[in-house]
Amino acid sequence: MDSVKQIEEARKNLRGIIHPTPVIYSEYFSQMSGNEVYIKPENYQKTGAFKIRGAYHRISKLTEEERACGVICSSAGNHAQGVAYAAQQLGVKATIVMPNVTPLIKIEATRNYGAEVILHGEVYDDAYAEARRIQKETGAVFIHPFDDWDVIYGQGTIGLEILEEVEDVDIILVPVGGGGLISGICLAIKEKNPNVRIIGVEPEGAQTLGHSIRKKSIVQLEVVSTVAEGVAVRTPGEKAFTIVQKYVDEIITIDDRELLEIFTILIEKHKMIAESAGILPLAALKKLKVWGKKIVCVVSGGNIDVVSVSEMINRSLISRGRLFCFTLELPDKPGELLNISKILAEANANIVKIEHNQFKALDRLMRVALELTVETNGHDHIANVIGKLEAQGYSLQRVY
Amino acid sequence: MDSVKQIEEARKNLRGIIHPTPVIYSEYFSQMSGNEVYIKPENYQKTGAFKIRGAYHRISKLTEEERACGVICSSAGNHAQGVAYAAQQLGVKATIVMPNVTPLIKIEATRNYGAEVILHGEVYDDAYAEARRIQKETGAVFIHPFDDWDVIYGQGTIGLEILEEVEDVDIILVPVGGGGLISGICLAIKEKNPNVRIIGVEPEGAQTLGHSIRKKSIVQLEVVSTVAEGVAVRTPGEKAFTIVQKYVDEIITIDDRELLEIFTILIEKHKMIAESAGILPLAALKKLKVWGKKIVCVVSGGNIDVVSVSEMINRSLISRGRLFCFTLELPDKPGELLNISKILAEANANIVKIEHNQFKALDRLMRVALELTVETNGHDHIANVIGKLEAQGYSLQRVY
Repeated sequence: MDSVKQIEEARKNLRGIIHPTPVIYSEYFSQMSGNEVYIKPENYQKTGAFKIRGAYHRISKLTEEERACGVICSSAGNHAQGVAYAAQQLGVKATIVMPNVTPLIKIEATRNYGAEVILHGEVYDDAYAEARRIQKETGAVFIHPFDDWDVIYGQGTIGLEILEEVEDVDIILVPVGGGGLISGICLAIKEKNPNVRIIGVEPEGAQTLGHSIRKKSIVQLEVVSTVAEGVAVRTPGEKAFTIVQKYVDEIITIDDRELLEIFTILIEKHKMIAESAGILPLAALKKLKVWGKKIVCVVSGGNIDVVSVSEMINRSLISRGRLFCFTLELPDKPGELLNISKILAEANANIVKIEHNQFKALDRLMRVALELTVETNGHDHIANVIGKLEAQGYSLQRVY
Repeated sequence: MDSVKQIEEARKNLRGIIHPTPVIYSEYFSQMSGNEVYIKPENYQKTGAFKIRGAYHRISKLTEEERACGVICSSAGNHAQGVAYAAQQLGVKATIVMPNVTPLIKIEATRNYGAEVILHGEVYDDAYAEARRIQKETGAVFIHPFDDWDVIYGQGTIGLEILEEVEDVDIILVPVGGGGLISGICLAIKEKNPNVRIIGVEPEGAQTLGHSIRKKSIVQLEVVSTVAEGVAVRTPGEKAFTIVQKYVDEIITIDDRELLEIFTILIEKHKMIAESAGILPLAALKKLKVWGKKIVCVVSGGNIDVVSVSEMINRSLISRGRLFCFTLELPDKPGELLNISKILAEANANIVKIEHNQFKALDRLMRVALELTVETNGHDHIANVIGKLEAQGYSLQRVY
């Protein structure tokens, strides 16, 4: 049976299990990029991410014997919730091994879907090893997050939906980590519509597939470092790699700063929360050199802890010049704080935080260190504030 | 012409101008309340709130002569953007008076829709007076945010949509400020379907309509104080008041803490950002004493500055017991911080911030004040941390 048929079968299988996630036209991103841009919002998917598609399809294909043994996987993220929910729906026992550091909210979500959660090790690799160990002991079926044909076919259902929802789509932008999602989409589309460009987007600090493609063989990254933890994978899947080599037209890389910017824009313009990995395609729009095309950005998931939401916003405010932090050394005499306050008030910079430290400077009889954080309206405003302070003889050091 | 016909006319008028906002079924809120709960997501509406409906309908009905004079309004919020966008679409000049303290992002959004923005005064009332003054000077048409029949008919289109989207709806929960939205919805629904319960929801700190209903005449509130700034109105509209008295079945009040909780849940469960006023209906679900009903919650808008998003999250973390801040007085001798750190590490409370102040305590030779902020997993965890510290003889004072 060819891949498209397999994916069509997966689609039937998923009917009534997953949420429909019809594409959303984005006025903002269309105008910004000069194209007709749609978001495929898998952050609105059941369990908050596309992973449920592959996980459910895979588990539904277990034999009676395998079902009796249950399933096991290791994941700190969306795959965990996908497997837990799918197993619950299919009446199969699920064991999920998560690293000790997994945010409580993700542990609870997974437990709420009825899975047994085992916390083990400090990083994903430890959890993976433990899951493999338990798997050998119990005979449970290991559900791989991406290197598995049925998982890939499940994710490919997104490709079929896009073809129906956006007639004559020209370009599809897809986040890539292990490669399961993009290879599924390629299989769904490329045989029939080779003219649809499929572009993978990965973080600068985790060029998992990009690196292997350039080396023309699978390479394991030494370190991965990105805010897009959902695609922070060290080794691409073997099955995905063959598909990606054959079909993917381009890989675009995005740095953390670009992700922060898009994260905040998505809140402002679409009132939408997505996880950092999920918005890689939107960040890639600026780097496309095309105009007037129909583009679908697959926003792959929305599972982000609210603490991280707040951190992402704060970091993006800094990068937009909406927060400015600097230190000054002042002579330790009365009136200096008054003068600084006056300059800042005149410059319309609202003080958010002051730290005034007599002990910081080396010569403590002469000078005190003052650390100020102010709200500003952008980088021009910051330059203006700096100018006003320097004009009065203060020399300041920027903290951020 | 009766009101339903007027609202049907408004609906035709708005076709192609506003976004469709089909209701979203909420698994979480349905389970939580034991009902079948739908969200009417006007935060996804063009300009980020329902206000565009009334503003567009009103402005579209101007005579040629009035159009030539342009329109004016005062608003720091959604009405400003609604009027600006509607006027732009209809080719009418718009002047919007906003208070000086309006967040830059809202000023920019309004300017981007082509309106002339005038900043005036510290509070809304000042801006209102200035708008009225300019209006007399220029002869522009003043577009009231709620006390205007065409505005009310425009908002009423939401009622017609709900009747089509949720067959046999039992209850509709609506945020109330001046009363324009709820009276429009009442007019659209109550004549034909008197059995649909329409419940207004307002903040504890701004019981604008509730207070007037109890007094059976329009009362102006002395002060309003709520995080739900979108409905922080001091006087209800006269037109709205007559409709509300006749048709509204119940008014429910919500405090700020309840709003914070729902704000964060909406991010977690629906990956959705809404403004505080917009989520009043979702917060009211817990206070309904009904089960098995079909309920629509009108989430009226999503225009919230990202700085406020981050603040709302932080405040809700405190209220969930995810952040805990306390002070201790310690004897000023080596080893005390070590001991505290050990207790906190054993209690699994992650230190986020330390302030150690030798000068805070009165007897500075004897004791130092230590202020600690730690991440915790809920109120039980906080009780556990307190217990462990007290067991070792420390006496602590809770900051939050």
